[in-house]
Amino acid sequence: MSLNFCFIGAGNLAVQLSKAFQSKGFGISQIYSRTEQSAKYLAEKLSTKYTTSATEIDKTADIYFVAIKDSAIDEVLKQIHFNNKLLVHCSGSLPLSAMEKYSENFGVFYPLQTFSRVHDINFSEIPVFVEANSKKNEKILIEIASQISGSVHVLDSDKRKTLHISAVFACNFVNYFYTIAADILKSKEIPFDVLKPLILETTKKIQEIVPEEAQTGPAIRFDKKIIDEHLKELETSPEYQQLYMSISKSIFDRYNK
Amino acid sequence: MSLNFCFIGAGNLAVQLSKAFQSKGFGISQIYSRTEQSAKYLAEKLSTKYTTSATEIDKTADIYFVAIKDSAIDEVLKQIHFNNKLLVHCSGSLPLSAMEKYSENFGVFYPLQTFSRVHDINFSEIPVFVEANSKKNEKILIEIASQISGSVHVLDSDKRKTLHISAVFACNFVNYFYTIAADILKSKEIPFDVLKPLILETTKKIQEIVPEEAQTGPAIRFDKKIIDEHLKELETSPEYQQLYMSISKSIFDRYNK
Repeated sequence: MSLNFCFIGAGNLAVQLSKAFQSKGFGISQIYSRTEQSAKYLAEKLSTKYTTSATEIDKTADIYFVAIKDSAIDEVLKQIHFNNKLLVHCSGSLPLSAMEKYSENFGVFYPLQTFSRVHDINFSEIPVFVEANSKKNEKILIEIASQISGSVHVLDSDKRKTLHISAVFACNFVNYFYTIAADILKSKEIPFDVLKPLILETTKKIQEIVPEEAQTGPAIRFDKKIIDEHLKELETSPEYQQLYMSISKSIFDRYNK
Repeated sequence: MSLNFCFIGAGNLAVQLSKAFQSKGFGISQIYSRTEQSAKYLAEKLSTKYTTSATEIDKTADIYFVAIKDSAIDEVLKQIHFNNKLLVHCSGSLPLSAMEKYSENFGVFYPLQTFSRVHDINFSEIPVFVEANSKKNEKILIEIASQISGSVHVLDSDKRKTLHISAVFACNFVNYFYTIAADILKSKEIPFDVLKPLILETTKKIQEIVPEEAQTGPAIRFDKKIIDEHLKELETSPEYQQLYMSISKSIFDRYNK
């Protein structure tokens, strides 16, 4: 397949996805971003063109990948004529139907991963979830996804939303708790590094056993003395104290139903 | 050092720690547990003796490791005469002073890790935090710890408690979020396996950058539309809905101070 892609958006996801496509021989004909700095950064990485003007978006691309935040999509897309080319969004939350007013050919291409600009990613192990308005477009997206990932799935919009919610817990909230842990350690000048082996092991464990069976700690034992001491210690951080309390309670309830 | 250890407790921590000591040539003279099945299981693993009676605990051991839950420690230890041998607890939360009424020589030996019976662990990378009633005993504990770990630290009781709280967030609560994610996926028959690459990457990221800078997701962007949709979807699990809401709010507050 010799296809040319245009990227609408130049954030973390666009950076990693466009680089993965280019490394597999796909053409990236243009990068669009409202932020010139981002557009330029990515275009230079890929040795391609960029624009900050929606009206100047490349008309010749075969597929348009929309990788901007959901709330900005309509504002940008309504300025563009896609001439019924295949238009694909990369959002976990947005339904397939969000694209139907902009083209007769549309789909979803959702790589389930957390992306950062700096930390490069091996796309081959990232699950990609696709959905399209027709079997023909679905087939195209499956073929493209299979070039960069060994884990390609067709998933409808409703299930994709559920998947996204689970990812918020397993990734976004988890990372926030790493931040809380770092904040707590900082208050006593203990380096965050000492937690890293524990964090790694917590993750490794659930590659082998289901997380439900891997649960340890004072909450599941309902060790009231420890929980109370921890809550007292957290008095100086009422927000963290509140989270500690509600999550401990939830763990206890979940395991004592 | 040719030392003999007696283990009071035969849970996950006792299993992993005693095995690590034995593999480095230390003698494990006896396992005590109130639960015969656990005592027997570990004693057989180590080809040593066991007892379920506190009065029959080996008088000849050089060091006694207490690895039972905090709330049970007093009940067990008050039945034993340690003849002022070195008595060490392995708890993150209990102060050093919790041992002083049982021996003139006492300390703390706290390996910061989550232990399971089934999943064996490479102790060499686990940070061990020690504390003792005297410089002499502290030196002994440092030497022993250094045999099994490359990361040995002296830490006082107050800071150890803080460390333990941070570990509850970074390990226990994190694992619980994996469980919630699995529960949510199950409701739509999506296999938990699809989340594993995301979970691994979330952990890998913070080996390189501080978690505060690794935060992504709808909460930090305060993408109200997505958050509201997720909350609506979670209506059937009010407990998870409540957690989703309070954590999202906390993330937003933390990043918009």
